[in-house]
Amino acid sequence: MRTQVIVVNGGSSAGKSGIIRCVQAVLPDPWLALGTDTLVGALPPALRASDGGIAFAPDGEVTVGAGFRTLEAAWIEGVAAMARAGARIVVDEVFLGGTRSQRRWEKALSGLGVLWVGVRCDAAVAADREVARGDRTPGMAASQAELVHRGVSYDVEVDTTHTEAMDCARSIAARVT
Amino acid sequence: MRTQVIVVNGGSSAGKSGIIRCVQAVLPDPWLALGTDTLVGALPPALRASDGGIAFAPDGEVTVGAGFRTLEAAWIEGVAAMARAGARIVVDEVFLGGTRSQRRWEKALSGLGVLWVGVRCDAAVAADREVARGDRTPGMAASQAELVHRGVSYDVEVDTTHTEAMDCARSIAARVT
Amino acid sequence: MRTQVIVVNGGSSAGKSGIIRCVQAVLPDPWLALGTDTLVGALPPALRASDGGIAFAPDGEVTVGAGFRTLEAAWIEGVAAMARAGARIVVDEVFLGGTRSQRRWEKALSGLGVLWVGVRCDAAVAADREVARGDRTPGMAASQAELVHRGVSYDVEVDTTHTEAMDCARSIAARVT
Amino acid sequence: MRTQVIVVNGGSSAGKSGIIRCVQAVLPDPWLALGTDTLVGALPPALRASDGGIAFAPDGEVTVGAGFRTLEAAWIEGVAAMARAGARIVVDEVFLGGTRSQRRWEKALSGLGVLWVGVRCDAAVAADREVARGDRTPGMAASQAELVHRGVSYDVEVDTTHTEAMDCARSIAARVT
Repeated sequence: MRTQVIVVNGGSSAGKSGIIRCVQAVLPDPWLALGTDTLVGALPPALRASDGGIAFAPDGEVTVGAGFRTLEAAWIEGVAAMARAGARIVVDEVFLGGTRSQRRWEKALSGLGVLWVGVRCDAAVAADREVARGDRTPGMAASQAELVHRGVSYDVEVDTTHTEAMDCARSIAARVT
Repeated sequence: MRTQVIVVNGGSSAGKSGIIRCVQAVLPDPWLALGTDTLVGALPPALRASDGGIAFAPDGEVTVGAGFRTLEAAWIEGVAAMARAGARIVVDEVFLGGTRSQRRWEKALSGLGVLWVGVRCDAAVAADREVARGDRTPGMAASQAELVHRGVSYDVEVDTTHTEAMDCARSIAARVT
Repeated sequence: MRTQVIVVNGGSSAGKSGIIRCVQAVLPDPWLALGTDTLVGALPPALRASDGGIAFAPDGEVTVGAGFRTLEAAWIEGVAAMARAGARIVVDEVFLGGTRSQRRWEKALSGLGVLWVGVRCDAAVAADREVARGDRTPGMAASQAELVHRGVSYDVEVDTTHTEAMDCARSIAARVT
Repeated sequence: MRTQVIVVNGGSSAGKSGIIRCVQAVLPDPWLALGTDTLVGALPPALRASDGGIAFAPDGEVTVGAGFRTLEAAWIEGVAAMARAGARIVVDEVFLGGTRSQRRWEKALSGLGVLWVGVRCDAAVAADREVARGDRTPGMAASQAELVHRGVSYDVEVDTTHTEAMDCARSIAARVT
């Protein structure tokens, strides 16, 4: 079955976005890159930091309210509809809910050709890269490194601890049909 | 009928994004803001500047290739599906094709409660604001100021030449049901 | 005397940066634009949010620690030295200390041709524009609108409440010798 | 002698900025980070793409005009003056002129405690990272990888090909007195 959606899951500062830009560069067809950051950027500023929305605590923990969950469910439906309408899409995700997060996507993408990709990175290395980036809430990398992979199953796993983004992208692209 | 989608159309530097952030702040429900910039940001970098993609000429003219049109059609379907799944959405658009652009959205949004909004701005004023912003290709504001409104019909029109973004947003919000 | 430095002072969201980009576009010589944002961007991330650094409270109040003051004094000396070495410079400033802030710059710039510019904006209008921008801590515009002008004297004053950035820039440029 | 300025030289996408943010995080004193990007960001938009300014060709080559050289000379004097006034500064540089670029800084910083740092990265790896970043003109990484080190001498050299930014930063910090 033709791959229509690539879902890339990993913690903050694991290197997902860089890998996805390389995947877009390496694959011959045009793929759209959408993800959690797109959705958060689309929220009303007030919801980005409120009880009903998504909040980034000073220690890097992320909490997500009911208002956000409702919009997220509709967002996921919409991304699935784009794929059904013919766009090939790479989804940049952070499965804060582990298995439950994957279930949500799985259900929405049913009938579509999906490639599930896990991006791992040693927690200490990711935490150092978070410092090097300088634009993330310190602590997110460490708190998400293991959490987001709990109970999630993948078709391909890459690890950026010792592998460059482009090489990870090539491993992923090789599995796209 | 309940408003489910607000489509905001206007030229570059007319002030659409500022109005949309004010609309999100003024309306009691959470509305997602999505638009042309979201789509362009999701494209593979190579498509942003190629024959098949979207190109920004040195004089500010924007051309759009067939590869982009295909992805755009799927994008529009997906945004409509998000609205059908319950998200309320403000769409930030630049109708480079005038009537034809509106038709495309109209067809995809059929059955949904849509509020059509035109954002106008005197071409010379928009061109000056483009200089003040400093991050746009010079010439886009002037070349799009009239073009994007040709043959397009609206429920509400606002003009940022002499009206603040927040006041425009209040006029729009007053029409949301 | 030839104008070597233009110091532009005003509160957050009053429209200083837009005016300064227009001043750079209107004046025939190349002018460098430097300011508080440049300095804050150069700080170690830890100092941007600590007791010894600069902090942005949830209500928009800005507090500045001793560690910041020391670096700021050296920064001001350096900007003055650039002007003495022949660069023409527009300084984008927020005089949180009113008269005292102006004294600091006055002392460092002694012997240079300086044009002092005040950028005013009605507090309520600036607060609305802060919402439209969406990337500033809400409350800064209102809390700084009057504060930064206390006891400060100017060669030119502009008011963005009803005047476009480009028109303000032209008034300023007309005073450059 | 106490280190007052750390000059970090390397090609585009070699990883200088990440290393510098780690250096700022690792060193106990506050250090200001300034560099070529700060200067380019301060230029009038027109000069960023003109004969007298700095231009980024489609193939990634960077050319620098006479107007830029004049402002750059004043900028270097000013950064040196900041260090003399007591700020400790990390300079993020791209020595497009090799030896000549280093001479310019050496002359301006005379009498100050300077640590010269070279950041190397394998050209092919840097080119891949340029793709992963997605916001740089393709080709800059490859064209600058060797060029910027020609005839330049260092106190410390780090190589990001196989070493993390934080580890490079620790090697540099260990040499700061």
